[in-house]
Amino acid sequence: MKAEIISIGSELTSGQNLDTNAQWLSQRLAEIGIVVGWHTTVADDFEANLDVFQTATRRAALVLATGGLGPTQDDLTREVLARMAGVELVLHADSLARIQEMFTSRRRVMPERNSVQALFPAGAEPIPNPRGTAPGIWMKHGASLVAAMPGVPSEMFAMYRDSVQPRLLAAGLGGAVQIQRKINCFGAGESAVEAKLLDLTRRGHVPEVGITVSDAVISLRILARAATPAEAQAQIAPVEATIRERLGEWVFGVEQEELEHAVAQHLEKEHLTLATAEGVTGGLIARLLTSIPGASGWYKGGVVAYQTDAKVQHLAVPHALIHEHGLFSAPVAEAMATACRIRFGADLGVSSVGIAGPGGGSTDRPVGLVWVGLSWDGGARTQTFSWIGTRKEVQSRAARLALNLVRLYKP
Amino acid sequence: MKAEIISIGSELTSGQNLDTNAQWLSQRLAEIGIVVGWHTTVADDFEANLDVFQTATRRAALVLATGGLGPTQDDLTREVLARMAGVELVLHADSLARIQEMFTSRRRVMPERNSVQALFPAGAEPIPNPRGTAPGIWMKHGASLVAAMPGVPSEMFAMYRDSVQPRLLAAGLGGAVQIQRKINCFGAGESAVEAKLLDLTRRGHVPEVGITVSDAVISLRILARAATPAEAQAQIAPVEATIRERLGEWVFGVEQEELEHAVAQHLEKEHLTLATAEGVTGGLIARLLTSIPGASGWYKGGVVAYQTDAKVQHLAVPHALIHEHGLFSAPVAEAMATACRIRFGADLGVSSVGIAGPGGGSTDRPVGLVWVGLSWDGGARTQTFSWIGTRKEVQSRAARLALNLVRLYKP
Repeated sequence: MKAEIISIGSELTSGQNLDTNAQWLSQRLAEIGIVVGWHTTVADDFEANLDVFQTATRRAALVLATGGLGPTQDDLTREVLARMAGVELVLHADSLARIQEMFTSRRRVMPERNSVQALFPAGAEPIPNPRGTAPGIWMKHGASLVAAMPGVPSEMFAMYRDSVQPRLLAAGLGGAVQIQRKINCFGAGESAVEAKLLDLTRRGHVPEVGITVSDAVISLRILARAATPAEAQAQIAPVEATIRERLGEWVFGVEQEELEHAVAQHLEKEHLTLATAEGVTGGLIARLLTSIPGASGWYKGGVVAYQTDAKVQHLAVPHALIHEHGLFSAPVAEAMATACRIRFGADLGVSSVGIAGPGGGSTDRPVGLVWVGLSWDGGARTQTFSWIGTRKEVQSRAARLALNLVRLYKP
Repeated sequence: MKAEIISIGSELTSGQNLDTNAQWLSQRLAEIGIVVGWHTTVADDFEANLDVFQTATRRAALVLATGGLGPTQDDLTREVLARMAGVELVLHADSLARIQEMFTSRRRVMPERNSVQALFPAGAEPIPNPRGTAPGIWMKHGASLVAAMPGVPSEMFAMYRDSVQPRLLAAGLGGAVQIQRKINCFGAGESAVEAKLLDLTRRGHVPEVGITVSDAVISLRILARAATPAEAQAQIAPVEATIRERLGEWVFGVEQEELEHAVAQHLEKEHLTLATAEGVTGGLIARLLTSIPGASGWYKGGVVAYQTDAKVQHLAVPHALIHEHGLFSAPVAEAMATACRIRFGADLGVSSVGIAGPGGGSTDRPVGLVWVGLSWDGGARTQTFSWIGTRKEVQSRAARLALNLVRLYKP
């Protein structure tokens, strides 16, 4: 059994407003074990609405709609549902009395037009709206249940929680629990990660394992559906253990954790301090680190040595080194990491050099090529990588590559 | 003639991620006069995808889809389109060569799995992807045109702009014109800005003028609808002139321009160079500046003096000054700005100090309080502000306050 969510309004299809109702409802339905198969957004047009409701009730056992219940002429949901059901709109006296009351209690006269909000397709039930004048509509159509709610988020949230969710559970639609676990990795590409998990990511695997990539961070999502939370967790635990075992040090965190959080935890745990020397990332490594509350406990500070001069003067990178290896090279990355470590009196120094683009590339050193370096008392390591991407993407991925070096440092 | 936009991915229908591609595409289509009638979001499920594409091609003359073109098993768009068309998937040799080339140029071996990205429904055309490995798919089905693009926003944006929009215009799909102009301001609150524009922002004004705020940047949006671009522009021009006249130096840019772009233009025009000394912003000012192509022409570099020690050692802020005025004070901000200007040999130095939170505040110096400083040869100025917000919001607004000082500097 799958659900469909319909969002109604030309302000949405025109791109003027961003629909967030569908996402919110999807999350709520997932919590009670109802899987959403489709979101549909439709303009304020009678025929298009009718078609969308007919399509939804053909393929989904539950249809939740938001919008189109206001008092104005472009609010069509009542009429569309009546037409689909082949019935008349009838006045619901209690609802009309309630709408009139809401105006009276605000010392206002109900505009005549608002009385349309008390019209319902014959056979449908009103759903109370504690926050506004538009009641919702609850009806059956064929094998589907349909609930139409207002588009105003605060009204819709209250109506869903107070009335719709209880009705869904009473109708036996929920029950199964859906729990999700997200595992975040860095250090390999999407295909390389999936190659280690093909048995888990195949269609039909229980629990479901999905893979997504964002800014060089690969996330595995384990989705378990079961009768109880404990059963869902019991599905997830062994799969998470397998993923962690196979991916090893690629795994750096779970849920919303980013690489900078992993670095912060690592430095705090090991009582290490860090300094930064940034070329290609231009301050982004520092920015990511200092976005974390308490960063002053382990982050000493850094230099953004954006021009060659700055690398020479402020990080004491020898001219000869730059001359011999080029500015974008492992030896320069290492020298910068060491220089900032010593200058800021930190345990670790991390650095970046490279070509963010769009200009500045060559055949030998193309745009997207970066080196990062890590220095500690007694050693250093560097790493290089090359990405295809915009300037911001290259900078963002280079910063993550550098943070990853810090995360993997073993004292 | 109406268009439908399809967004593909279980991370969207589950509510885990918010789809913003459909909104972006709706805005772009509106610009060329194509009305969007539907957005549909569908999970990674073969039958559900097939149904959604069949429904869309039945009711819409143009179908734009995003997602499902990656190399993994849950990427189904290629197969779904082939099934719908009743044709086989065939290998497009040029596309395969291009994908292999992208890996080779990065000195990497193409994972076997990526070769599926060179498969197309027989009769379909590949759409080049300048930013990634997945080409798009362009095909006709019945009376509809279908374009399938990647779900990664940056790849999709480039593919739409470079290839899809030109094809839509060439196919004669455009219509009445809607043109939008966005004017960006900094230096006053939303109410103060609106108070100067009440006659323009009232409902029913032609063209429509809206006001929005994001991270202390206020934007005015002028929306004109007309038969031709020239007529729409003729509506916009006098309103833009009025806004600029009334808001004066608050206006710093248009459309996607941020304060850092205004700073870059100003420095380039005046042939000035800049250095940074960051406390509370922790590298964010540098990061914003270096996100701009060509920043190395005018940005010398900077210091992230995150701990008190670093301010004393690397920026030569006298201990006595900190003792007398406190670390979070105008004199310290000024001293830091001057120190980085001199140390990096720049014309201007800009600085920030303050309390980002969540800890570290006091009754006297609450969380959210910042000072920014600007130093030039012969003078300096500082500015203070206090916001209520999260750590990231305080840092982000402090960086903007600092950039605004640079933008308003008159040599």
